[in-house]
Amino acid sequence: MQKTKSLTAVRILAGPPADTADIQYLTGFRAPDPAILLVAGDGRHLVVSDLECGRARRSRAEVVHTLRELGGGRPVRLLDAGILWLKKRRIRRVEVSELFPGGWRERLEKEGIRTATIAGATCPARARKTADEVAAIRRSQRAAVAAYREAARILRASEIGRAGRLRWEGAALTSERLRQAIEAALARHDCEGGETIVAGGPSGADPHERGRGPLRAGEPIVLDIFPRHRRSGYWGDLTRTLVKGVPPPELRRMYAAVAAAHRAALARTRPGAAVRAIHRAAQAALRAHGFENRDTPEGPEGFIHGTGHGVGLDIHEAPRIADTDGRLAAGNVVTIEPGLYYRRIGGVRIEDTVAVTAHGAEILCPCPYRWIVP
Amino acid sequence: MQKTKSLTAVRILAGPPADTADIQYLTGFRAPDPAILLVAGDGRHLVVSDLECGRARRSRAEVVHTLRELGGGRPVRLLDAGILWLKKRRIRRVEVSELFPGGWRERLEKEGIRTATIAGATCPARARKTADEVAAIRRSQRAAVAAYREAARILRASEIGRAGRLRWEGAALTSERLRQAIEAALARHDCEGGETIVAGGPSGADPHERGRGPLRAGEPIVLDIFPRHRRSGYWGDLTRTLVKGVPPPELRRMYAAVAAAHRAALARTRPGAAVRAIHRAAQAALRAHGFENRDTPEGPEGFIHGTGHGVGLDIHEAPRIADTDGRLAAGNVVTIEPGLYYRRIGGVRIEDTVAVTAHGAEILCPCPYRWIVP
Repeated sequence: MQKTKSLTAVRILAGPPADTADIQYLTGFRAPDPAILLVAGDGRHLVVSDLECGRARRSRAEVVHTLRELGGGRPVRLLDAGILWLKKRRIRRVEVSELFPGGWRERLEKEGIRTATIAGATCPARARKTADEVAAIRRSQRAAVAAYREAARILRASEIGRAGRLRWEGAALTSERLRQAIEAALARHDCEGGETIVAGGPSGADPHERGRGPLRAGEPIVLDIFPRHRRSGYWGDLTRTLVKGVPPPELRRMYAAVAAAHRAALARTRPGAAVRAIHRAAQAALRAHGFENRDTPEGPEGFIHGTGHGVGLDIHEAPRIADTDGRLAAGNVVTIEPGLYYRRIGGVRIEDTVAVTAHGAEILCPCPYRWIVP
Repeated sequence: MQKTKSLTAVRILAGPPADTADIQYLTGFRAPDPAILLVAGDGRHLVVSDLECGRARRSRAEVVHTLRELGGGRPVRLLDAGILWLKKRRIRRVEVSELFPGGWRERLEKEGIRTATIAGATCPARARKTADEVAAIRRSQRAAVAAYREAARILRASEIGRAGRLRWEGAALTSERLRQAIEAALARHDCEGGETIVAGGPSGADPHERGRGPLRAGEPIVLDIFPRHRRSGYWGDLTRTLVKGVPPPELRRMYAAVAAAHRAALARTRPGAAVRAIHRAAQAALRAHGFENRDTPEGPEGFIHGTGHGVGLDIHEAPRIADTDGRLAAGNVVTIEPGLYYRRIGGVRIEDTVAVTAHGAEILCPCPYRWIVP
C-alpha cells in the first residue's frame, strides 16, 4: 500500500525553468529550455535535454534523466520522455498545476494516464521565505538601492536647461539614458534589470509605463527598479519618486499623501494582519489628504492598484495586499507601494520590499526617502 | 453562415505577454503580467488589467478590454473576464495552442465552451520574418557584436599572471567580470543580456554552462552573447571562442575543425535547403578533421547539439537545423553554430545569426573570426 500511495501522488511540472518559479523553487534549476519535473515518493526527477545534463546534476533534484537516456539511446521529445518515465513505473494518475499545458494533458490521457488539477498553489510554502531566501531577496534589493543612488547622483549632477529640460554630460537627460545607467549599475551587482521604469511627468500616470524622452525639472520622475539576481533568481523591488528643482504645490501635496499612506501601510505590516486592513489604511491616508479615486474617459485616476505583492522567484507572487481576503504570516516578503496617478501631473509612488518577521516587519534594504533633488 | 463561421474560429492565447511570443507577434504587446488575447473575425481583442490599459491601447490589438470593464465596473479575474467576453458573444467553441493551461480549459469546458487544440504552430508565419523583423534582429545582433568587441578588448588588455591566470585592471579576470562588461555593453545598446555565457577551459565543455571563476591563458573561452532588444523584443545570437596567449596544438585542431564545419554549414544555408543536409555537412566537416562523437560516463562528447535554430521573439524557435525533416525558406533567420566539446579541454563554438534571402544567406552583423588574442 505504501508503494501505491507514493505512486499515485506523482506531480508533473513542465516549462522553461527560467520562467517557472515552482521548478526553480523545488530544484534550484534555472535553465531557459523546457524541462519536466516529476515529484515522486522517491524524490524529484528532472527530465532535461542532454545539453542541460551538467547543470541539472548540480541542482537539488535527486535524479536527472536526459531525453536520450529515457529514449533508450536516442533523444526523444520532452513530453514523450516524461510519458516513458511514467509508463516504466506503471503510473496511471498524475497531478498537475492549473497552468500545465492542456495539449500535454490530452496526450497523457490518450496514453492512459489520468490527470488531475492541483487545487490552489502547487508550492504554497513559497509564500513563507526561509532565511536563505530572505538573504537572496535582500541581495537583489541592495542592488536596487545602489542603482537608485546612481540615478539620484545623475539627477543631482544634471542641469536645468531650456523649457525645464534636464541636461547631463553635455546632452539631454532622457528616461532612456537614466535607465541605462540604472541597468548598468544592476549588472555590476550581478542582477538583470528586467523592465526598469523611469517615467517623468504625465507618462508616470500609467503605473507600468517605462518612460521615454527628455526628463524635466518640477515634474515627478518615478524610478521603479526591480532587479533579479542572476545566480539566485530572486527579485527585489524598489520605487522612489524624485523631482529635480522645485516641485509645484500640487505635487508636494501628492507626495505628502503617498508618504503618509506608505507609513500607514508599513505600520500595519506584521504577522496576522489582514491584507485588506493594510490596503484600507493606505486608502484612508490618501483620502485624509484629499485624494480620491475618479473615473475619466481615459481610465481611472487616483490610487489605482493594490498596496503590495509578494516578492520571491516571481516578481509578483503571493500574498497580495489589496482589497481581498487573507492575512500576513511571518516569512512573507512583500512590497508596500501606495501611489497616486493623475494624467495631468503624472505618478507618485513609494515602494519598499519588507520581510514580515515574528513581531513586525523589516525593510530589507533601507533607501533614503529624500525626494527633492537640488 | 458567414457570422457563424467567423465565430467558430475564435482563438484564445493566454500568458504573460513578455514570455508569450505569439501574443507579442500578433499585437506587439509585451507587458509582464498575464493577459488574454482573443483572435476573432472582427479583430484582436486584448484582455488586460486596468493598469496595463494604456500600454495595451498603444499595441496593434484592435480592441482592448480591462478586467474592470468586462466585470461590469469591478475587476474580475483574468480567465473570468475571458469567459464573460465569450459568453456575451455566445461563442461555444474556441481553439487553443498545445501549451494553453489545462486547468483553464477545464474551466472553459465547465462553462459550456468547447476547446480544441490547434495542430502545429499557432503562428507559423513567425518563421518567415518581414523586413522589419530582420531589421530588429540585426539591431540586437549589432549589440552582440559591440559587446563581443568589448570582451575582446578586455582580453587583449589583460595580462598573463601566475599559473596562467589572467589579470585585468589589478585583479583576476574572471568569467563574472567579463560577463559584467559584456552585459553593460548590451545595456548601452538598450538590450538585456539574458544568460550570457563566458565559459573558460573545461567548464566550456557543457554548452549551456555560464562559466565562473578565473580565466586562464591557453584555454578556450566560449563567449555566447544573446541580447534581447528591450523595445522590439527580438533576440540576436552570437558566439565566438577566444584564447589568450598560445593555444595548445589540440585546441588549434579543434578550432580549425569547427571553423570548417561553420563554413560548410553556412555555404549550404539557402532557401530550399534541407536542414538535415546542412547539419550533416557540419558533422562531416568535423569528422574529416578527425573529431568523432563519443559516449563517456559523464555524458556524450564531440558535436553534441544541432547546427542551429531560428531566432526571433523567442531565442529558440522554428526552424531547427538538426537531423530532422524540413527545408529552409526565404525569410527564415537562423543561427549557424557548430561546436566541439571535450571535458578535458573545454568547448569551441562559432555562431552567427543569418537571414535566409531569396538566393542565399546574409550574416546579419558580421563579426571578426580572429580567435587568438595576443
